[in-house]
Amino acid sequence: MNRPIRTRTDPDEVRARILKVAEERFRRIGHHKTSVADIASELGMSSANVYRFFPTRDAINEFICERAVNEVADIASAIARTNATAPEKLNRLLTAIHHHSKTKLNKERRIHDMIVATMQKNRAIMKAHIERVVSIFEVIIREGIEAGEFKVEDPAEAARAVRTSFIQFFHPILIEHCLQYGEDAEAGLREQIRFILKALRNSD
Amino acid sequence: MNRPIRTRTDPDEVRARILKVAEERFRRIGHHKTSVADIASELGMSSANVYRFFPTRDAINEFICERAVNEVADIASAIARTNATAPEKLNRLLTAIHHHSKTKLNKERRIHDMIVATMQKNRAIMKAHIERVVSIFEVIIREGIEAGEFKVEDPAEAARAVRTSFIQFFHPILIEHCLQYGEDAEAGLREQIRFILKALRNSD
Repeated sequence: MNRPIRTRTDPDEVRARILKVAEERFRRIGHHKTSVADIASELGMSSANVYRFFPTRDAINEFICERAVNEVADIASAIARTNATAPEKLNRLLTAIHHHSKTKLNKERRIHDMIVATMQKNRAIMKAHIERVVSIFEVIIREGIEAGEFKVEDPAEAARAVRTSFIQFFHPILIEHCLQYGEDAEAGLREQIRFILKALRNSD
Repeated sequence: MNRPIRTRTDPDEVRARILKVAEERFRRIGHHKTSVADIASELGMSSANVYRFFPTRDAINEFICERAVNEVADIASAIARTNATAPEKLNRLLTAIHHHSKTKLNKERRIHDMIVATMQKNRAIMKAHIERVVSIFEVIIREGIEAGEFKVEDPAEAARAVRTSFIQFFHPILIEHCLQYGEDAEAGLREQIRFILKALRNSD
């Protein structure tokens, strides 16, 4: 008795394929012009099947958006784990975050637009991302205090202040304005990192 | 020979009346729902007459927008002219700017929306405004250096860094997000001012 072989598809694999096709279309055509039906048809499946994995179209956007912001947090984590001094780590980390965000904007404009639109609809993603980055700042600040490189009373407060002071260089909306203004973002970046490090080094 | 008395209207007065009616409509109905014809009809004049004073509808928005941002700069100037110490002036000034922007957003939501829309279309207004505020920061920083309250090498650079560090508290788009997030903006404001003053006091 020969039954046709039914390949059992791993749900995680299907999710990954849906996301891959969606992201590729967002990059090529833009998220506004991509429907669930388009994604389904490209995968040779029904829209209903896509909805089994992602209950709404927004859920697809949110997943891709979260993945993109996690890249930033991963870069920050990796730098935090190196052996440099705390001021040097913070310097490299802030520079890397800015450059990553700028590259995303310049090279993957449509994905950037999707991220901005998704974050404006779902603030929880931005909030969680910022909290993660701020907690990495805090770890570095604590190390700096221990090593006598920073003089800070409240590391959590200082970490929030670093975030706020640097928001222009990584907030998806502001980074766009900043580049549109034609400001010399690189010079501004170095100035701002110097200013942040001064505040952390102060003994006041 | 009795000719009818023709009242000569001062062009400045007509401009002021057009702006008053426009602003009042923006506040009541919103800028999207206000046409030049609406403004003209409320003033009992023709649209063509309004266009004699403001060549485009955008010119009306820009004028009202500039007036609103000038209010902020005027508050900053007034505080800069008081007799307080430089750190105290900066503290009061940043607090006042934030509170003014927040009040505008909460009490005059439709005007706030018009300002955001106009600034997104015409970045020169935002740029000029920021430059004016930064130059006020710089004057205070120079005073602080002279009085031995601040230790700063380059006052112009430091003034730009103060602007960047504080952007979340007065940028019309960010202030909106900040309040939507339900963050405790007042606590954040005090933390951020402390951080800025630490950076300025540092001798590094």
